[in-house]
Amino acid sequence: MTDPAGPPATPTPPTSAAVARRAGVSRATVSYVLNGRAAGRVAAHTQARVRAAAEELGYVPHAAARSLRAGRGSIVLMAAPADAVPAFGPLFSHFLAGFQSALHHLGYTGVLHGAPAASPVAAARAWAELRPAAVLALHGPPLDAPAVELLRRAGTAAVLTHGPQAPPGAHALFLDHREAGVLAGEHLLARGRRRIGVVLPAEPGLAAFAGSRLAGVRAAAAGCPGAEVRPLDLALTEESAARLAAAWPALGLDAVFAYNDEYAMLLMRALQDAGRTVGGDPEQIAVVGADDLLPARLLRPRLTSVRTEIAAPDRIAGLVDGLVRDPAAAPAVHRLGTFRLMARDSS
Amino acid sequence: MTDPAGPPATPTPPTSAAVARRAGVSRATVSYVLNGRAAGRVAAHTQARVRAAAEELGYVPHAAARSLRAGRGSIVLMAAPADAVPAFGPLFSHFLAGFQSALHHLGYTGVLHGAPAASPVAAARAWAELRPAAVLALHGPPLDAPAVELLRRAGTAAVLTHGPQAPPGAHALFLDHREAGVLAGEHLLARGRRRIGVVLPAEPGLAAFAGSRLAGVRAAAAGCPGAEVRPLDLALTEESAARLAAAWPALGLDAVFAYNDEYAMLLMRALQDAGRTVGGDPEQIAVVGADDLLPARLLRPRLTSVRTEIAAPDRIAGLVDGLVRDPAAAPAVHRLGTFRLMARDSS
Repeated sequence: MTDPAGPPATPTPPTSAAVARRAGVSRATVSYVLNGRAAGRVAAHTQARVRAAAEELGYVPHAAARSLRAGRGSIVLMAAPADAVPAFGPLFSHFLAGFQSALHHLGYTGVLHGAPAASPVAAARAWAELRPAAVLALHGPPLDAPAVELLRRAGTAAVLTHGPQAPPGAHALFLDHREAGVLAGEHLLARGRRRIGVVLPAEPGLAAFAGSRLAGVRAAAAGCPGAEVRPLDLALTEESAARLAAAWPALGLDAVFAYNDEYAMLLMRALQDAGRTVGGDPEQIAVVGADDLLPARLLRPRLTSVRTEIAAPDRIAGLVDGLVRDPAAAPAVHRLGTFRLMARDSS
Repeated sequence: MTDPAGPPATPTPPTSAAVARRAGVSRATVSYVLNGRAAGRVAAHTQARVRAAAEELGYVPHAAARSLRAGRGSIVLMAAPADAVPAFGPLFSHFLAGFQSALHHLGYTGVLHGAPAASPVAAARAWAELRPAAVLALHGPPLDAPAVELLRRAGTAAVLTHGPQAPPGAHALFLDHREAGVLAGEHLLARGRRRIGVVLPAEPGLAAFAGSRLAGVRAAAAGCPGAEVRPLDLALTEESAARLAAAWPALGLDAVFAYNDEYAMLLMRALQDAGRTVGGDPEQIAVVGADDLLPARLLRPRLTSVRTEIAAPDRIAGLVDGLVRDPAAAPAVHRLGTFRLMARDSS
């Protein structure tokens, strides 16, 4: 039954005009009732009749058509591919779930849009097709000025991009990964370490975060005479970790901030398998991870970790709602969270 | 500048009519050119003029309006809250990313929709507002008949729900978790174990999968005289695992299939901390996890794990495209993947 020339048209869904006919009222009345604006305008028994007609016909409002009439959409589009969600860590995915729920209670529909795009403008064009009220670019290259302009011209009231600043017309959502590096660096220096390695993951998509974390460790070390910071390339494989562990004596490092808990667990195991001892005593190698994952607490020694403290989802949803309602709001940088060091036995 | 009475209308985005005026052509011509159907209909230099006009005005087609004209939408809606994505494991989130990419190449926009809903019908109503061409219910309660009917009446050509069967008008996407239990059970029996615990996670949302995995272990044990299977409640906390480990001597179990690698790692560590030995020798406790996570290979002994082998994203995207093009296709059960046991030192 497949039609190679293109899909056949599906049956036309019931319209609000059909609901109006069945209930014997005007389309404006149907709109008032089904969009929750009937109070003081439409009698209770008429409201009941409209609802019954909509129910009988299986009528569902069309989000996009409604947004065209209302002058704004109800979609809040979060731009991040599905495989970036776990890369953010469980904390962030819990944030996203709470955020979707908070948006829902404010009358928005939060969707995660993860199609690949050749450029920020190409991505913005794909997002604009959904006529979102707000776009949050949470991952990938931050939005540039042409991408923001395209979204604004297509009617997106609030455009937020990640990073320390945003192009004209957009707001910034900022999680300062440099702070994670400062915390890890200060902790290791306070534990007497002076030759600190910092893991730069070989996996794609993490370079910007890793670079900021490295800069943070360097900033912490800058205030400490004799302290030295060295970037270390590591892929998330046992082979790569074994190679780094084998090179350890030549590197002469007494500590490592391993980007996150996964790289830290991998490297700690490889160092142990190579006969080195990880821990908090001065003659041991101190290891610090990040994300505070449960498995990292199951290794021995238990892993010290920099925990991300993400903002309350309700607060960010309220921020987005405010920006949608005030599309001309002055651009600002909004903090998405902070960091905290959880000291354990590995450092 | 906030307007408490409601958001102000944003500037009207440029329309295809404006593009037509600027290019000096009809709206039909604009539609042919911008929807890739101009070949043989519109001269090359006219196509170029239309594209230039669209570019100058910053015109972006409206996905929903286009879908109304074409008789079908371009949105493929995947229903799963963001925090379910990591719960599926990294394999599944990589699948989702590949799936979004494959949909993109077929001309669809894949979005992940995770708003909470009171019932399957309420969820379906929220999804229908986006007028999706296809809905894949990947998580939560499987869709029931009224939810499927609502989606079909709203114009959704293809409705797929997870589970072994689907209501009328929908297709099933099935990952048979019972198979994972059969594999774990058969492996433990072959390793000489006869008293097998099966972890049932206390965390919400996993009961259906856990029940199927338990049924699989029971099916494997049914063919083996003297074999006994016992469900074990476990929460994903160190306290819960310590309690279960303390009760172990009274349980008298010689093996455990721990739902997934996280529960397995947690329980293995608690058993070791309680002085028990985990491993493949007959006097040791055999532990099997699932998902084949990297950290599980970093513990000692290395964890045996049941790996999920998810179908190629291209294949599932092609399946969805076929169902959108043939909305009357006979309902069928489509397998989303299979399982494979990775035997290591813990069993």
